[in-house]
Amino acid sequence: MEHISGGICAARGFTAGGIHCGIRKNHAKRDIALIMSERRAAAAAVYTRNLVKGAPLTVTKKHLEDGHAQAVICNSGNANTCNYNGVEIAEQMCALVERATGVPARDVIVASTGVIGQLLDITPIENGMPSLAASLGLNSAEAAEGIMTTDTKVKEIAVEFTLGGKKCRMGGIAKGSGMIHPNMATMLVFVTTDAAISPELLHRALSEDVKTSFNMVSIDGDTSTNDMVAVLANGMAGNAPVEGEGNDYAVFCEALHEVTTYLCRCIAADGEGASKLLECRVAGAADDSTAKTVAKSVVCSSLLKAAMFGADANWGRVLCAIGYSGADVDPGRIDVSFESAYGRVDVCRNGAGVAFSEEEAAKVLAEKEIGILVELNSGTCAATAWGCDLTYDYVRINGDYRT
Amino acid sequence: MEHISGGICAARGFTAGGIHCGIRKNHAKRDIALIMSERRAAAAAVYTRNLVKGAPLTVTKKHLEDGHAQAVICNSGNANTCNYNGVEIAEQMCALVERATGVPARDVIVASTGVIGQLLDITPIENGMPSLAASLGLNSAEAAEGIMTTDTKVKEIAVEFTLGGKKCRMGGIAKGSGMIHPNMATMLVFVTTDAAISPELLHRALSEDVKTSFNMVSIDGDTSTNDMVAVLANGMAGNAPVEGEGNDYAVFCEALHEVTTYLCRCIAADGEGASKLLECRVAGAADDSTAKTVAKSVVCSSLLKAAMFGADANWGRVLCAIGYSGADVDPGRIDVSFESAYGRVDVCRNGAGVAFSEEEAAKVLAEKEIGILVELNSGTCAATAWGCDLTYDYVRINGDYRT
Repeated sequence: MEHISGGICAARGFTAGGIHCGIRKNHAKRDIALIMSERRAAAAAVYTRNLVKGAPLTVTKKHLEDGHAQAVICNSGNANTCNYNGVEIAEQMCALVERATGVPARDVIVASTGVIGQLLDITPIENGMPSLAASLGLNSAEAAEGIMTTDTKVKEIAVEFTLGGKKCRMGGIAKGSGMIHPNMATMLVFVTTDAAISPELLHRALSEDVKTSFNMVSIDGDTSTNDMVAVLANGMAGNAPVEGEGNDYAVFCEALHEVTTYLCRCIAADGEGASKLLECRVAGAADDSTAKTVAKSVVCSSLLKAAMFGADANWGRVLCAIGYSGADVDPGRIDVSFESAYGRVDVCRNGAGVAFSEEEAAKVLAEKEIGILVELNSGTCAATAWGCDLTYDYVRINGDYRT
Repeated sequence: MEHISGGICAARGFTAGGIHCGIRKNHAKRDIALIMSERRAAAAAVYTRNLVKGAPLTVTKKHLEDGHAQAVICNSGNANTCNYNGVEIAEQMCALVERATGVPARDVIVASTGVIGQLLDITPIENGMPSLAASLGLNSAEAAEGIMTTDTKVKEIAVEFTLGGKKCRMGGIAKGSGMIHPNMATMLVFVTTDAAISPELLHRALSEDVKTSFNMVSIDGDTSTNDMVAVLANGMAGNAPVEGEGNDYAVFCEALHEVTTYLCRCIAADGEGASKLLECRVAGAADDSTAKTVAKSVVCSSLLKAAMFGADANWGRVLCAIGYSGADVDPGRIDVSFESAYGRVDVCRNGAGVAFSEEEAAKVLAEKEIGILVELNSGTCAATAWGCDLTYDYVRINGDYRT
């Protein structure tokens, strides 16, 4: 599979744009994004499992009941959640898209991210809509910037793959950073593809994918109220539609996983205040569930995250996090190593420490991407989870997020 | 119930001491403590649920099989966990107590706290034992200091109560600070009392108590491998032994709860890097389990903890933490207020924001003890959980804990 440029505009028939409309006070930051498909597309989405759900999710769910959509509108700076008029405002956003572009409001996916519990004023969105519609073009990065909150980097990717002899493209953008501990359906991620696939299979592919992609990312253990991953497939590549679970479906799923896991790593690496990407790879588990639980517990440990920030090979905290994970493991069989571009250091074998050079370990942990390798020696199942270190900046950012 | 001085030496027949024996490099810090009862005492303990358990817990469990003990030895600076010779070393610690004091090794409770996965050298303990035994006296604070790790304050308390016309006393010390997210049995807490009570009832009282005391504390979501709460009751107050669940048992439980909840607040307020104690009081829950789950989820939210550090009344994060707690609640009925010595501010009603003065809210949140009041309006059950804010110092302390 080839990586290509273009982000969410790499797939045929998709345009995107992003502008500053005034939801945020910072004029230098785009605060609203629009994604548009030339044709009505098969569409699927998964959502946060938080009981407190953002109003935009309610509206999007309703609009996707028929398995199709044509546009995505998403603002940052305000989550439109826990507001008495949230659904009404989200519906107005869709209506404004209809007025500006002609795409029926019922075919618009709407999302919001930002502060919870502050009324979202429709005025700047209404005033900005003509400019937003005019910004549509091959502008994936601008749309990606429009959905960012405390993210420091634009997150986008595109790949090319072949279905039934036809070249297809798929691209994605993501917004990550804080309040990230997905549970089943998660974060703000928008994926576009020109592959033809039925809405049912698209939904199945997405639902399966998130189990090993976004659900395995944690920044801070907080599951947001507004997480959403949405995919639009407009069929403009001209392939014979994927309508069963054959080889084409497998290729499609592989492309989707390439896009989603790339975005997972981007989101984790750019977690609030993060200076390092943590990737915990668990092997030798008796079953998938054990592998996932252990991997997730390790990347969620505040103590381990702080140790990684300090480049401290404090492997006892890895054992501790495995021990309280709830997974049924034998501590006496666990091996742990740390790995990075610098090299690898083995620190624990059969649940007990092994001699290692603290100096070498510090060099391994000084890199920007750290692998935490856990071998359970109890089976053949594996899992990977992504997280980031816990830094002073996480505290600074969240100590006065609203001000 | 009257609060009295004396800590764990307030109860008749108990002495304690603490010295620096050399486990820690810092000579100014006591690193080992001894608690002694004149008479063999009924004893009970509860332990961490982490699957990776410290070797001292294994030895203590064995020693308490007969429901009795007479001494407690506890070191800081090294957890004696994940070491191949952990049990052997823990047994040697008990044998050293026997040699120095005459108390049989099988009546000694042993505990350790500190770094995981580094061999614990018995030499400094062996060399220090005569001085440690000689330090025994009415020295509760010195013992409390001996078990401290990154704690900044000695945590002790004593109360006086009456059983069957006889004055009884109960005291406790605690070690808290980091890796604290108890699950059923928790932390290093030692409680002494001169009340007479059967081992069975003592164990029952303790097991019940921790459900609403130590299990409702979280500093950082990490459940330690070495947590332990132990109680010794030597009967020297001369009361008719508590052997059934009558009025005396209720009074005993009340005294125990006074001691344990006081220590919970101390532990939370002195959490690693903490500048504020957070107390989440949930009311109006349909059942106890819901109330507990909600209260615990709120004090565990990294985002809320950082907001409290910044005195930011970001109540959306309270709603968010309730929403992902797993408790079955109706978000549309939730009211939230913040409260402190300065006053109270209502910030959310029926799941939506209410107008409030940010200036007044900042003053409420500038205090050292913050109440987060959650009314679910769905029943009559309540629960309280304790935690602390997330600060730069937590990151600093844990970024280089071993160095």
